[in-house]
Amino acid sequence: MTYELYYWPGIQGRGEFVRLALEEGGASYRDLAVLPRAEGGGVPAILKALEARGNRRPPFAPPLLKSGRRVIAQTPNILLFLGAQLRLAPADEAGRLWTHQLQLTILDLYLEIFHTHHPLGDGYAYEEQRAAAKRRTQDFLRVRLPKFLGYFERVLALNDRRGPWMVGRRLTYVDLSMAQVLAGLHYAFPRASARALRSRPRLRALETAVLARPRIARYLASGRRVPFNNEDLFRHYPELDR
Amino acid sequence: MTYELYYWPGIQGRGEFVRLALEEGGASYRDLAVLPRAEGGGVPAILKALEARGNRRPPFAPPLLKSGRRVIAQTPNILLFLGAQLRLAPADEAGRLWTHQLQLTILDLYLEIFHTHHPLGDGYAYEEQRAAAKRRTQDFLRVRLPKFLGYFERVLALNDRRGPWMVGRRLTYVDLSMAQVLAGLHYAFPRASARALRSRPRLRALETAVLARPRIARYLASGRRVPFNNEDLFRHYPELDR
Repeated sequence: MTYELYYWPGIQGRGEFVRLALEEGGASYRDLAVLPRAEGGGVPAILKALEARGNRRPPFAPPLLKSGRRVIAQTPNILLFLGAQLRLAPADEAGRLWTHQLQLTILDLYLEIFHTHHPLGDGYAYEEQRAAAKRRTQDFLRVRLPKFLGYFERVLALNDRRGPWMVGRRLTYVDLSMAQVLAGLHYAFPRASARALRSRPRLRALETAVLARPRIARYLASGRRVPFNNEDLFRHYPELDR
Repeated sequence: MTYELYYWPGIQGRGEFVRLALEEGGASYRDLAVLPRAEGGGVPAILKALEARGNRRPPFAPPLLKSGRRVIAQTPNILLFLGAQLRLAPADEAGRLWTHQLQLTILDLYLEIFHTHHPLGDGYAYEEQRAAAKRRTQDFLRVRLPKFLGYFERVLALNDRRGPWMVGRRLTYVDLSMAQVLAGLHYAFPRASARALRSRPRLRALETAVLARPRIARYLASGRRVPFNNEDLFRHYPELDR
């Protein structure tokens, strides 16, 4: 089975949460964002997949994952699917729902990180919403970020006799997503995130443990990973990082 | 089996999506938000449930659903669970994921509706973010709302030989959530939403069909439903409804 991943070229975005699961799961997949147009990749392929002619269950937005004739959208939903396919989630129903619940809380967190630089949405450029971004970021760094990190640190503490992961004894897709959000926070807010993580040893250990996974390490070193950049979900504006 | 729903009193909020599923599913449940303090309800009960002592899988925020000894959080996750329990979703895996995918897109929509009045988050009162709210709402009504409604109308059109529902021949929890968002839009933006829905006959028919369900009609008439109000997810500020 070869999966196909459809996502915008040039950014990690939401697609990266799916990529990390595919990589760690050892899945065979075609990444349409990096495939040259001549080989059927790039923006035209994404637009065609979004148009979804003949698909009675059309997606609203990328990322999309094709698995045979199925097209699955919405990042947490794709991970719910891949968690079972690639054994990156518990097999029992209660464990699967708990893992998914954590993923939806991680989604809440990275949406709030996106809103720090785009509180008015992406209908306006960052430069058109600087003042609003500054106010939103103040509240985010002072109130929301410590609340989220405190919560996830507690989840790790409750599971720490079983290892560095959030759920049970084995890595799940939420560990990959959490490590990705932490990497994004380091990029976006190097000063504020270093300060916020000082009292979160388990989150730091989780990130280290994910980066040390052989398949993840190989992926990060492969040159295939798009670097963080300021068109992306996580953006670095020094004036926001206080 | 009697479920317990924990959510803030005085608002519909995210809890209402769960309530509608419990009502339509004919479930027996205790709604801690409306239960008097003397009978163990109200804010103290919610705070205690959030504290989650002895729960190794603690929730981040309400709504929470207790089912026996399990505590499930995150609205779409609760609906994924209840969809199977109350037969409000297809039984096959592909159908369940498609239903969940739609619910996550509905989540995107109601989050954007919340951001129209709180683009800087709820760390600031509406009065402190009026100018930002106006700009965000402009883009929402002009670009985002038509895009979402157009998408859901298309989903209904693709399924319309089978009836008024979004998925297959039977009502699912996404129909309930979609009708709730439409009701919220009427309240928040009576003028703009009437205009936007003029060319969406299937969405209007869906809302009518949901409101005509006997159990939903009974619930809405029961006095148990909290009225829409301006402390809630959907808020009516006339200056935003243009």
